[in-house]
Amino acid sequence: MPSTKTQALEPTSQGTYKVFNRVLDWITDERMELLNITERINDLVHKSGVRDGIVHLQSLHTTTAVFLNEWQDALLQDVKEFFDRSVERDRYYRHNDPAFSDCERSNADSHLRGMMMGQTLSLQVRNAAVLLGTWQSIILAEFDGPRSRSIAVQICGV
Amino acid sequence: MPSTKTQALEPTSQGTYKVFNRVLDWITDERMELLNITERINDLVHKSGVRDGIVHLQSLHTTTAVFLNEWQDALLQDVKEFFDRSVERDRYYRHNDPAFSDCERSNADSHLRGMMMGQTLSLQVRNAAVLLGTWQSIILAEFDGPRSRSIAVQICGV
Amino acid sequence: MPSTKTQALEPTSQGTYKVFNRVLDWITDERMELLNITERINDLVHKSGVRDGIVHLQSLHTTTAVFLNEWQDALLQDVKEFFDRSVERDRYYRHNDPAFSDCERSNADSHLRGMMMGQTLSLQVRNAAVLLGTWQSIILAEFDGPRSRSIAVQICGV
Repeated sequence: MPSTKTQALEPTSQGTYKVFNRVLDWITDERMELLNITERINDLVHKSGVRDGIVHLQSLHTTTAVFLNEWQDALLQDVKEFFDRSVERDRYYRHNDPAFSDCERSNADSHLRGMMMGQTLSLQVRNAAVLLGTWQSIILAEFDGPRSRSIAVQICGV
Repeated sequence: MPSTKTQALEPTSQGTYKVFNRVLDWITDERMELLNITERINDLVHKSGVRDGIVHLQSLHTTTAVFLNEWQDALLQDVKEFFDRSVERDRYYRHNDPAFSDCERSNADSHLRGMMMGQTLSLQVRNAAVLLGTWQSIILAEFDGPRSRSIAVQICGV
Repeated sequence: MPSTKTQALEPTSQGTYKVFNRVLDWITDERMELLNITERINDLVHKSGVRDGIVHLQSLHTTTAVFLNEWQDALLQDVKEFFDRSVERDRYYRHNDPAFSDCERSNADSHLRGMMMGQTLSLQVRNAAVLLGTWQSIILAEFDGPRSRSIAVQICGV
């Protein structure tokens, strides 16, 4: 009976699909800054009541990024130095040159850092909590602060 | 009443889950080229009638990438130079060496650029439109053109 | 009739939303190692019976990554050398310095490589299979092995 073999799994959950859309805001203090946003995301997931599904994070700013890493002071310093090395701030960029660009923030490095790391992140929701490994924290990276920053959070599932 | 506290949010939408699968094609003209695909993606989302959910983009080619950034001529030049610097084309690669590889395109740099930037992107759909910050455009990067390129678009939600 | 114009698409699928949560494990043998996990992911998707939707992969370890690329021996060597160049192992890192960190693995490079490449990947499910272009394989990168590694797999859709 091939159909038994190929559809052997039982769904973890099924039912009416729900979507929760919210926007969370942060104020940043430095030009480059790393913020641990795990707790606020998890709190929103708890309040949604979604048991199994996805939480999708989308920073609404090109000069930011959202990603996972361990939240340890020493490592966070290494992370910032990695961004400084990978995308140098003091190099010539057209985006920073008044002859080619009307941007006055001199933030080409911020754009490239945000692009390299990405502004979106999808994480699984299991048992009404954000799924994270032992050492995984959700990090918002500010690359052109200080600013007010918004992350659109969508929780969907059952 | 803890249950009230932990499930305080009302869903933005709920109902029958719908999935729309399509494939969009582009013709590229240069070996490295950046294309603004925002309008065609948003048009497809509008036509789907999905109000709240996710639009998932997946380029079907390893030597391409899909990501967000500001669509500004000066910055796009900086972006291309960033790819040229981060993954040099003229370095020795096994993938380009006939002694180790049957690939005749000499496109190891294209593979590494596509891998570094990623070929997938999930964005939120809210109020029947793709959610994008003021300066966010959806960019398809061609790293081994000119070619015909396909992006699988899946819109799901309610 | 604008409504006809703006909602012209028929859904590929619709119905009761199902979620399947599983965890798959791998044993790695080297400090840096690339594993082709395509077959096991596709097998799980087949068994779920989900016809259209998303399969979401989330490695539960900060010193790993999940991404797409061609699975070719010569290229895989280039990929490893790219990681060695982009994030040097032998540089000074605070995370590796006992004066600042209690981590004894000297794995700052592993953290930065995992962060740069990302630990999550969403792929479309179409016609009860993982959607992949001709040359796309799903790759799990080990950056701090040998270890036992777990990937949380969520398949959702109809």
